[in-house]
Amino acid sequence: MIGVWIEDGRVEVRSDLPDPTAADSEAVVAVKIAGVCGTDLALLDGYKSFRGIPGHEFVGVVEKGPPGWMGARVVADINVTCASYPPARDRCPSCGWGRETHCERRTILGISGRDGVFAEKVALPLANLYRVPVLMPDEVAVFVEPLAAAYRILEQVEITEATRVLVVGPGRLGQLVARVLAGTGARLKVAGRSEEGLERTRRAGITAVTLEEIDPGAFDVAVDCTGHPDGFGLARAAVRAAGTLVLKSTFPGRALIEVGSRAVDEITVVGSRCGPFRPALAALASGDVDVADLIDSAVPLPDAPRAFEHASRPGVAKVLLEI
Amino acid sequence: MIGVWIEDGRVEVRSDLPDPTAADSEAVVAVKIAGVCGTDLALLDGYKSFRGIPGHEFVGVVEKGPPGWMGARVVADINVTCASYPPARDRCPSCGWGRETHCERRTILGISGRDGVFAEKVALPLANLYRVPVLMPDEVAVFVEPLAAAYRILEQVEITEATRVLVVGPGRLGQLVARVLAGTGARLKVAGRSEEGLERTRRAGITAVTLEEIDPGAFDVAVDCTGHPDGFGLARAAVRAAGTLVLKSTFPGRALIEVGSRAVDEITVVGSRCGPFRPALAALASGDVDVADLIDSAVPLPDAPRAFEHASRPGVAKVLLEI
Repeated sequence: MIGVWIEDGRVEVRSDLPDPTAADSEAVVAVKIAGVCGTDLALLDGYKSFRGIPGHEFVGVVEKGPPGWMGARVVADINVTCASYPPARDRCPSCGWGRETHCERRTILGISGRDGVFAEKVALPLANLYRVPVLMPDEVAVFVEPLAAAYRILEQVEITEATRVLVVGPGRLGQLVARVLAGTGARLKVAGRSEEGLERTRRAGITAVTLEEIDPGAFDVAVDCTGHPDGFGLARAAVRAAGTLVLKSTFPGRALIEVGSRAVDEITVVGSRCGPFRPALAALASGDVDVADLIDSAVPLPDAPRAFEHASRPGVAKVLLEI
Repeated sequence: MIGVWIEDGRVEVRSDLPDPTAADSEAVVAVKIAGVCGTDLALLDGYKSFRGIPGHEFVGVVEKGPPGWMGARVVADINVTCASYPPARDRCPSCGWGRETHCERRTILGISGRDGVFAEKVALPLANLYRVPVLMPDEVAVFVEPLAAAYRILEQVEITEATRVLVVGPGRLGQLVARVLAGTGARLKVAGRSEEGLERTRRAGITAVTLEEIDPGAFDVAVDCTGHPDGFGLARAAVRAAGTLVLKSTFPGRALIEVGSRAVDEITVVGSRCGPFRPALAALASGDVDVADLIDSAVPLPDAPRAFEHASRPGVAKVLLEI
């Protein structure tokens, strides 16, 4: 089959990849559309020593699996864990405690130990699949996975109508995070450098400001969606004493952080990664979260390297691969 | 009066200091005993550009104030805030929200903007004073303030009998933190480098291990009480995915932290500072927390510089100043 292949930091499109086979409790899914995510671009930059087919945001159709699943249009949770293969008698401690996304034996679709979705087909455990509502277009369903990651924040931090929230970074993930947080009625602002990103935020009815316009210490919660080490400091400066800073950025490298001042100011810093699929599916189905304006372009699979290059430019919205 | 004076990083004992005067809603307290804290030592090392009388842990007797307070033996909350001067009509936003320890106009006893307790007398708002139970010795009451800081953790993090907790740093603050956490019935260990500190921990009936014996990722909660930038990394490595790291250390300088991995592991980092006096007073009065073995020595006020030097050696327990 045709697919994207990463090895030693090089990307190529290959047509000699073997078709995936479905193990017990798995399905083979024909990928229809896949989304390019910041994590994919970080992988190309050496974020993890991944070798194989990248990609984890997608919508596809089950083409091999139990009769009840055949032909189903699906999206999928990207963490393949002890819980992905029932009956799960022998769970790792994390799964035993119900923290499946932190499974100690996990593989992650297109990120770690498991081929991803930038290819014609992908094998996935049935337990990871979610059916897509019939009326939801593919171009909407492909946003379920990143939108779920945005919903993760609401599982971790209490946000009410009184909460002053700042999202730093009006990029792909920042847009989704802002739209999810807007649904809480919170007093929300989005700050960033990219004029396109800020404009896109305003069109969604959300207040957008430049980095210079951030009021220091004026926010109860700040969410770093910049994907850049500097984002941490920007978000940190925006948070009031005893406030909460949510880290959504995953990037290689480290940041120099004033630890002492954080103890004094009693800031809580929360790392945040993958999230719940059901609220994401529901919000897209109901239209509570609209993603129509978040697509930059759709590119055929063989043009993937060009798509990656384009997606890595500042201000570019979601780039889709058509398989 | 006689007192310790810090200026431009130099410490001296002076006998020409003016007696403090009590403003409205304040009392003058004659200091009986004061404790030397890591923060005092950090101040001498240039942690803040404080000029004046340091010291914030103490027990004393009210010698000027309203009749109801005269002769009362007291300890005191170190944050002087909008709430310290009732009626507090004009509160800053932090105090308005009930976060008085983060008062935006606060002065802090012997740390910031207000003379401290390493002197014969100190002036303090009445609202900051707590009466000490009659039967509690001065040498116990002097631990109320640092013990309150240890109780702060229980306001911030849920700790049950099932929680695996590691305290890193068996020093002065670490001992108090460990004894408070032991009261929750949590599965508690204390790790450190100082043999004296570990031995002191074991004598309190708490499991103590060397830094090499810390099981990586085996703790739900880790509390950094090292007072050193390296402590953060040690505590971080001990915490499981989606676990909580509590920062008790206040020290100058910064630490290089892998931000990306923290988002991926969804670690929550909580800064923790001053805490509630009432549970600390109650635990010392009931004997639930015993501090008898935590005193290294008591030194007369004029020997304060020598006491500071001694207190800064590793493994040394609480050094008291007798005023």
